[in-house]
Amino acid sequence: MSAPPVQRMCLIGVGLIGSSLSLAAQRQRLVGEVVGCARSEATRSKALELGLADRMVEDPAEAADGADLVVVATPVGVYAEVAERIGGVLQPDAVVTDVGSVKQATIRDIGPHLPDGVHFVPGHPVAGTEKSGPEAGFPELFEKRWVILTPPPGTDEAAVERVAGLWRGCGAYVERMTPAHHDRVLAMTSHLPHLIAYTIVSTAADLEPGEMAEVVKFSAGGFRDFTRIAASDPIMWRDIFLNNREAVLEVLQRFNEDITALQRAIRWGEGEFLEDRFRRTRELRSEVVRAHQAGTFDPREPDKAKDAGSTS
Amino acid sequence: MSAPPVQRMCLIGVGLIGSSLSLAAQRQRLVGEVVGCARSEATRSKALELGLADRMVEDPAEAADGADLVVVATPVGVYAEVAERIGGVLQPDAVVTDVGSVKQATIRDIGPHLPDGVHFVPGHPVAGTEKSGPEAGFPELFEKRWVILTPPPGTDEAAVERVAGLWRGCGAYVERMTPAHHDRVLAMTSHLPHLIAYTIVSTAADLEPGEMAEVVKFSAGGFRDFTRIAASDPIMWRDIFLNNREAVLEVLQRFNEDITALQRAIRWGEGEFLEDRFRRTRELRSEVVRAHQAGTFDPREPDKAKDAGSTS
Repeated sequence: MSAPPVQRMCLIGVGLIGSSLSLAAQRQRLVGEVVGCARSEATRSKALELGLADRMVEDPAEAADGADLVVVATPVGVYAEVAERIGGVLQPDAVVTDVGSVKQATIRDIGPHLPDGVHFVPGHPVAGTEKSGPEAGFPELFEKRWVILTPPPGTDEAAVERVAGLWRGCGAYVERMTPAHHDRVLAMTSHLPHLIAYTIVSTAADLEPGEMAEVVKFSAGGFRDFTRIAASDPIMWRDIFLNNREAVLEVLQRFNEDITALQRAIRWGEGEFLEDRFRRTRELRSEVVRAHQAGTFDPREPDKAKDAGSTS
Repeated sequence: MSAPPVQRMCLIGVGLIGSSLSLAAQRQRLVGEVVGCARSEATRSKALELGLADRMVEDPAEAADGADLVVVATPVGVYAEVAERIGGVLQPDAVVTDVGSVKQATIRDIGPHLPDGVHFVPGHPVAGTEKSGPEAGFPELFEKRWVILTPPPGTDEAAVERVAGLWRGCGAYVERMTPAHHDRVLAMTSHLPHLIAYTIVSTAADLEPGEMAEVVKFSAGGFRDFTRIAASDPIMWRDIFLNNREAVLEVLQRFNEDITALQRAIRWGEGEFLEDRFRRTRELRSEVVRAHQAGTFDPREPDKAKDAGSTS
């Protein structure tokens, strides 16, 4: 049998994404040895128990030593610290990638700490669930999902192809764009939706206990869908908002203008304005469903189940 | 075989809710004859084709004539017109109910047109999907969902029980509350979430065509969940917002204050504030999931599927 494309993968962080990547890569025989890194003893033993790695260590440098591929899968907020720890032990031609939801900050925080001869290929799998932690991982997470790579100009093409091949091997589609463009697109498709969901759920969380109980009871009216998104990992999302501030504030400003317009239309009874806005959103929905039917989304996602949504 | 609890049900409007109620009630043998009413010939023939009614007529008065139960299932905005049309033909002891998502406006618009001796039991099944029209209906829609009844003080208890029994027979749980309380609770659990979803999707719809295509492509990041909610019927939702204005504007004001606080925290890098808010929403989510596991929500809803949500 031929050697796997990656001899030793160092996985720094074994949360939902890291654990899913390890399970998928092992199942597809894309990696030889997997050395994982986690701060807490509890997480390290859980990871071994789940078969996420052959070895689990506490020190990022020890984990990265001798690895030909290093995957940084921690919250974005600790990237600089992690990069500083591993920078000294990376072997020539090693490839470093990550799975963070912001990419300009990734390059700002990791890039400076990597020695010459080490290849840096920032990446972001646009996949996930509201669950977090090593137990949340499953090998099908990336099937038919997009992974965006944002290699800086001049990055070694063979290194980019190694990372792209790993993700394709896990069932994902790979796309390349600039870090700035990635951060703008994801601010709209992911960061703003999460911020809005967190906001509306926290608005409800501030209600009187009695009212709260009724919100929970009648959440099938639409609120429930927001609670799922708002259950995502608090630390991960704190770091995303703090590290994609400009793009998030820009789309949030657009959102605020639009909701103010709808608010005004409701106050003044402007039915035509409301109806017109609501029709336009329906068209965008059908584009999303078409893209989904074209197979670019997880076929198991609930869009097409007739009882998936909740309205009225 | 004993006679069904409802001899002749008049169904004014055969959209998602009306068609689902007819299918469920017929399947459970809760109704004898069903006379449906729809404005367009196309809808009437489609309804007959789908077995939603024994007869379909254009005139609400003709449909209501001789019915012992009248269910108004049109958009809330035409309630007054419908009530005015049927008021004159309703037989003594007939029961009139509706399925609208706002209840104070329902009583304001329908109540005055009903003659003495006719019983009025406003209702709202908290169930639905993003689909609309007669083809969207399915008899399981109300299973394990809540139906809220808001009968005015002094309403005949036997009439309330007839409506409650119909919904229980369709698999729903029945709750009673005042119209004003209903409108406040639903403004938070349903109306605000829909307004927010419509807004964020219309914000995206205003992007450049090129950016729009990418939003669709990468919508698995969280945006997709909003597009489903924002695909709901534009006329129905226009009427809901126009007819529950005060309650919607009140919760929207709370939401605006909360998002402004988060916006400020992002701008000034206040990570602790963000993390604290995000943790609190997570707790509310677990309450929703617990309620769901307790069986008060449709067991087929996607909450618990590990790939149901999308984040990062």
